[in-house]
Amino acid sequence: MTTTVTPSTRNGVDTATLFATLDAVKAAPEAAAFQFRASNQWLTGTHSRSTIHGFFGVGEERTHERTFTFDADHPAILVGHDNGPTPIEYVLHALATCLTAGLANIAAARGIRLTEVKSTVSGDIDLNGILGLDPDVRNGYQNIAVHFTVKGDASPEKLRGLVEQSRKRSAVYDILTSNVPVTIDITTD
Amino acid sequence: MTTTVTPSTRNGVDTATLFATLDAVKAAPEAAAFQFRASNQWLTGTHSRSTIHGFFGVGEERTHERTFTFDADHPAILVGHDNGPTPIEYVLHALATCLTAGLANIAAARGIRLTEVKSTVSGDIDLNGILGLDPDVRNGYQNIAVHFTVKGDASPEKLRGLVEQSRKRSAVYDILTSNVPVTIDITTD
Repeated sequence: MTTTVTPSTRNGVDTATLFATLDAVKAAPEAAAFQFRASNQWLTGTHSRSTIHGFFGVGEERTHERTFTFDADHPAILVGHDNGPTPIEYVLHALATCLTAGLANIAAARGIRLTEVKSTVSGDIDLNGILGLDPDVRNGYQNIAVHFTVKGDASPEKLRGLVEQSRKRSAVYDILTSNVPVTIDITTD
Repeated sequence: MTTTVTPSTRNGVDTATLFATLDAVKAAPEAAAFQFRASNQWLTGTHSRSTIHGFFGVGEERTHERTFTFDADHPAILVGHDNGPTPIEYVLHALATCLTAGLANIAAARGIRLTEVKSTVSGDIDLNGILGLDPDVRNGYQNIAVHFTVKGDASPEKLRGLVEQSRKRSAVYDILTSNVPVTIDITTD
C-alpha cells in the first residue's frame, strides 16, 4: 500500500494553516480588523528611533515576540549624521518585503516551489519639493520602480503571475498608489 | 568688547550647513535630483531581508556610511514566524521619522529649541482586503492616525506650527496621501 503525503509546508509557508486562517476569517470576518502601531522618540537633529511591539488583531491586543527598534536619520549630504536610512528608504524596503511575502504565500497556495526571489526597488525624488524651493515639485517620490527576479519549478508565465497576484493583494502597494487618510493631532504640554 | 556668538547648531541641526545647502540647491536645482534604493532577498515563508546602502544625489553615486539591513516577516497569527515587523509597520515608522526629522529642522530654522518630541502612529487595516475575501475592502490601511507630543521654548501655537509645516514638507506624508506611480518588471531566468 502506498500512502501519498501532501506536504503542508511549501516555500516555508504552512499552507494548511494558511488555508485554515482563510476559512476562519470567512466564518468571522470581524477577526480581520487589525491595527498596527509604531512609537517614535526624537533623539537629535534628523535622528529618531521607533519602537514596534504591540498590535491589535483577531479580537484582542497582541505583541510581537520581540520589541523591534529602528533608527532613521539623514546622511551628511542632507545635513544629518547617517545613524540610519532615511524615512523614505524604509518605504522602499516596506514595498519590497510586502510584495515578496505575498508572492511566497501565493506560490505556496498554487503549489509552486520557489528557489529564488530577489528584488530591487528604487524611488526618484526631487528635493526641490521638500526644501520648499519649487512649488511645482511634489514632496515625495515622483515614481518608484521595482525589479523582481523570481525562480522556481513553474513556467516563466506562472512565475510572472505570482508577482502580478501579489501586487493585486499588496497592502504597501495599495497605500502608495491610492490615497490613505492621515490625521495628525498634537499635544504641547 | 562683547562678542555675540550665534550658535550654529540648534536641536542637533547644523543650521549654517542647512541654510548653505538650501542656497546651494537654489543656485543649482538639478543637485536636488536623488534616487534612493533598497535590495531585498527572500529567505523563507513571509520572511525577507532588505539591504540599503547606495543612493544617487547631488550629481553622483553615493553610499551610506554603513550598510543597513532589515528583516520583515508576519507574526504567527498571520502565518509567519515574527522574524521582524510586518511591511506595513515599517511604513508607520517611516511616517513618524519623516515628520520628526522635518520638525527638528524647521524648529532649528525658526530658532526654537526642542526639549522633547514623541509620536505614536497607528494604522487600521481590514485584512479581508489582502485575503481576497471582500472586494469592497481595500488592501492597505483604511486610515492612519498620528499623535505628536512636542515640547520646547516656544508657545503651544508655535510648537503646533512646527508639526503643521513638517506635514506640508514631508516626503512620506505626501506618498501616503497622494498617489505614486509604481512600475514592476520581472525576470524569471
